[in-house]
Amino acid sequence: MRHFEIEMNDLKSRLVDMAGLVQKMIKETIAQLVERKEKSAAIILGFEKEVNIEEIVIDDTCLKLIALNQPVGADLRFITSAMRINSDLERMADEAVNISEKASDLIKYPELKPLIDIPKMADIVTQMVKDCIEAFNTSDAHLAKSVLEKDDEVDDLRDVVLKDLKEYMVKSSDPETIQRAVDLIIIARSFERIGDHATNISEDVIFMVHGKDIRHPRTVNCK
Amino acid sequence: MRHFEIEMNDLKSRLVDMAGLVQKMIKETIAQLVERKEKSAAIILGFEKEVNIEEIVIDDTCLKLIALNQPVGADLRFITSAMRINSDLERMADEAVNISEKASDLIKYPELKPLIDIPKMADIVTQMVKDCIEAFNTSDAHLAKSVLEKDDEVDDLRDVVLKDLKEYMVKSSDPETIQRAVDLIIIARSFERIGDHATNISEDVIFMVHGKDIRHPRTVNCK
Repeated sequence: MRHFEIEMNDLKSRLVDMAGLVQKMIKETIAQLVERKEKSAAIILGFEKEVNIEEIVIDDTCLKLIALNQPVGADLRFITSAMRINSDLERMADEAVNISEKASDLIKYPELKPLIDIPKMADIVTQMVKDCIEAFNTSDAHLAKSVLEKDDEVDDLRDVVLKDLKEYMVKSSDPETIQRAVDLIIIARSFERIGDHATNISEDVIFMVHGKDIRHPRTVNCK
Repeated sequence: MRHFEIEMNDLKSRLVDMAGLVQKMIKETIAQLVERKEKSAAIILGFEKEVNIEEIVIDDTCLKLIALNQPVGADLRFITSAMRINSDLERMADEAVNISEKASDLIKYPELKPLIDIPKMADIVTQMVKDCIEAFNTSDAHLAKSVLEKDDEVDDLRDVVLKDLKEYMVKSSDPETIQRAVDLIIIARSFERIGDHATNISEDVIFMVHGKDIRHPRTVNCK
């Protein structure tokens, strides 16, 4: 195997490992929220540090791969997609930290009401993240497309969660209840964002595999 | 001037123009929200279509510039930074659309309460977007750094907005009031995200100018 190919495989492995860290962070946010596991917050912050280091190392690796090997075509598409995926993974990690911060506040109080459809949302988003990385790892554009379809489910669930929480606030004028409902709205939005990042990664995988940019299908057809 | 330099200047102009569209979108969201200008929603959607087209054209231009010219050093950093800035600008446009959708709901009802500190937040964010693009256009790392400092102001204002809106909801159990307060919370978060994207762009400008990655300063020092 050529040196360049070995380095490209290393880059892929690094991204898949980084995605593994992000997946652990998301799993931990759900444990913190649903099982009220207090120590999750510290675990999540520990993973975030690792993700931040990986982001910088991977970007640096990508720049060096381009500068030293002057790739074109599919190889260049792979490296620039890797840079974008790297950025989306790091932003997923940021959202996991946001969720954890709100969850830390929430679990100080006794549970007031089931978490409505938030765990269901979190489950779909977890699957989206798993699938988009698997699609990247195996260059599976078909699997990547299936992630795009799940994004609509997440948006629908977010609407249900918002509606339920608003009804709940209307029924109660207790300050703590309002506080908790607002925290849950922000948590739901963060899970939605993680789903959006998984969608971005899936679009990158499709671009990487087919060389076709499928973003904004209704507005442009220039490739 | 060499052909490559001309194309690099064209790329810069395209990004600055795209940023101009995004700035117009943000200005229009404020008009919709503060002056209750109904027709802003359609204007914002029109700009979004242009931004989406630009995003794809700019990414394509960057890939071709790398493939055909095999740049290294500062030129390569400029092009990969341009790809990242492109992505952040497009996501700012998405946030402007999110704000506009919520504003469209809000202005159906008579104004119930001043918009608290949201217009102030929007003003700072508007300045951040203007400055990060000016920093990119003039390779001004000093100006880029000033944007990073403003991000803390935005986060502080967001906390004040959230606190005020929660107090407001506690005082009222009227469904419409709760609905409007939740919409304003989501709008405040979207302005905050636009500020985050301006911060990302500023970090890219500093990287582009100095070749130094300043993201996550406390976690890594590998460059």
